[in-house]
Amino acid sequence: MLRRYKAVVSYDGTGFAGWQVQPKRRTVQGELERAIREVTGETARANCSGRTDQGVHARAQVVHVDLATKIPARKLLLALNARLPDDARVTSLRRARADFDARFSATGKEYRYFIWNAPTVPPYVRHHRTHVRPPLDVKAMSAAGKLLEGRHDFAAFCANPGYEREGTVRRLYGLTVRKRGPEIVIIAKGEGFLYKMVRSLAGFLIRVGAGDLPVSAARDILASKTRTAHVPTAPPQGLFLWRVTYDSARTGAA
Amino acid sequence: MLRRYKAVVSYDGTGFAGWQVQPKRRTVQGELERAIREVTGETARANCSGRTDQGVHARAQVVHVDLATKIPARKLLLALNARLPDDARVTSLRRARADFDARFSATGKEYRYFIWNAPTVPPYVRHHRTHVRPPLDVKAMSAAGKLLEGRHDFAAFCANPGYEREGTVRRLYGLTVRKRGPEIVIIAKGEGFLYKMVRSLAGFLIRVGAGDLPVSAARDILASKTRTAHVPTAPPQGLFLWRVTYDSARTGAA
Repeated sequence: MLRRYKAVVSYDGTGFAGWQVQPKRRTVQGELERAIREVTGETARANCSGRTDQGVHARAQVVHVDLATKIPARKLLLALNARLPDDARVTSLRRARADFDARFSATGKEYRYFIWNAPTVPPYVRHHRTHVRPPLDVKAMSAAGKLLEGRHDFAAFCANPGYEREGTVRRLYGLTVRKRGPEIVIIAKGEGFLYKMVRSLAGFLIRVGAGDLPVSAARDILASKTRTAHVPTAPPQGLFLWRVTYDSARTGAA
Repeated sequence: MLRRYKAVVSYDGTGFAGWQVQPKRRTVQGELERAIREVTGETARANCSGRTDQGVHARAQVVHVDLATKIPARKLLLALNARLPDDARVTSLRRARADFDARFSATGKEYRYFIWNAPTVPPYVRHHRTHVRPPLDVKAMSAAGKLLEGRHDFAAFCANPGYEREGTVRRLYGLTVRKRGPEIVIIAKGEGFLYKMVRSLAGFLIRVGAGDLPVSAARDILASKTRTAHVPTAPPQGLFLWRVTYDSARTGAA
């Protein structure tokens, strides 16, 4: 009999061609499914809350997987980590209800986009921060972020609006900007995000912070529902899938 | 005519066999001297404030170098960074007085040792934090650190006391321990450090934090002047050379 498990997975996206399995490419899903196979002998699909692209990191990606193994969850976690490469780790593993779905049960998601705003970037953060040289106006970025909060059609902040099966309207709970020394963090919380939406929001906010666009452009671009050069896709290495939230009732052990 | 320059260099120690040039090994000094040669045509020695070992990082290593080039310092910095690999960066470069010496003019140094104290380490910090699983008692670590501050014979916290030409007495201005979430930072400030002294202090404080040694062991071990198994050398990847201080009079432009 198969049992459903909820796993929380953390990874350094630097060495992966993203989450999703691809022929001849090193992916997080591929490594995780290989580790599962090696530990349990089972060929199982690791279903995530939402794919991440090449170079994007995850603090806490959530995955569901169905397994027949009798290995207790605590032991299974250790065994999987022993088989995983050191740029991916299972940080939590437990039984979930049969109807728990990492993607469809999610009630919200948080992404964080990290910018290093200084003339030079310390080499030891180069794979995990996006380097922006010109001094950014964090107040302007915050104000523009505020204008984008709420339920809107985010077609102008999405890479392929035509491919979004569920349309391009999403609720953005929060889009805040914090500064600590040379580090600027954009925190995006929402019920769901379109393809490359966070990197598009970050790319836009960086342009506002650099003074290339006024704060009010947030409203105009949103209303246009059209992707233009005003919204560049910020590079992947600054982006972290930070957390995925669920109704606790849906994740409880069976 | 040769002019002396003071350079501040930041590097990710992960991919280097330490600072010092070694045959057939990739070192920070080797890469920096190669970049200088490619940019200026000059074969110059890059003299640092103190070598770092394999895997140890530098936020701000200080270097002096003598060059004949007429390239202005600002341009030279950009040219060097264009020739350096992306795990090393010159963050500042300026003319210095002829008697400025990166090592001997230094009045103090600060190292920071970063620990990730949680059951699992996020993969994206694995090369820049030392993973310690058992929960550490930061108060005990702080108290032990306090006992080590001041002018002492640190022979018991040094890898090769016999090789220290200037003896093993040093003044430790501060040895403080801070915690922020799962991250613990040991900040060591002193007029100078013995070989592997900071990693020895960190290794000892981790043992105290884990409850393997009492706080008072700091005084006993110091008094023993003998290196024992109570003082393990903590791994290199948590260590950063944070800053080197000088009397401003010694660094002023000629």
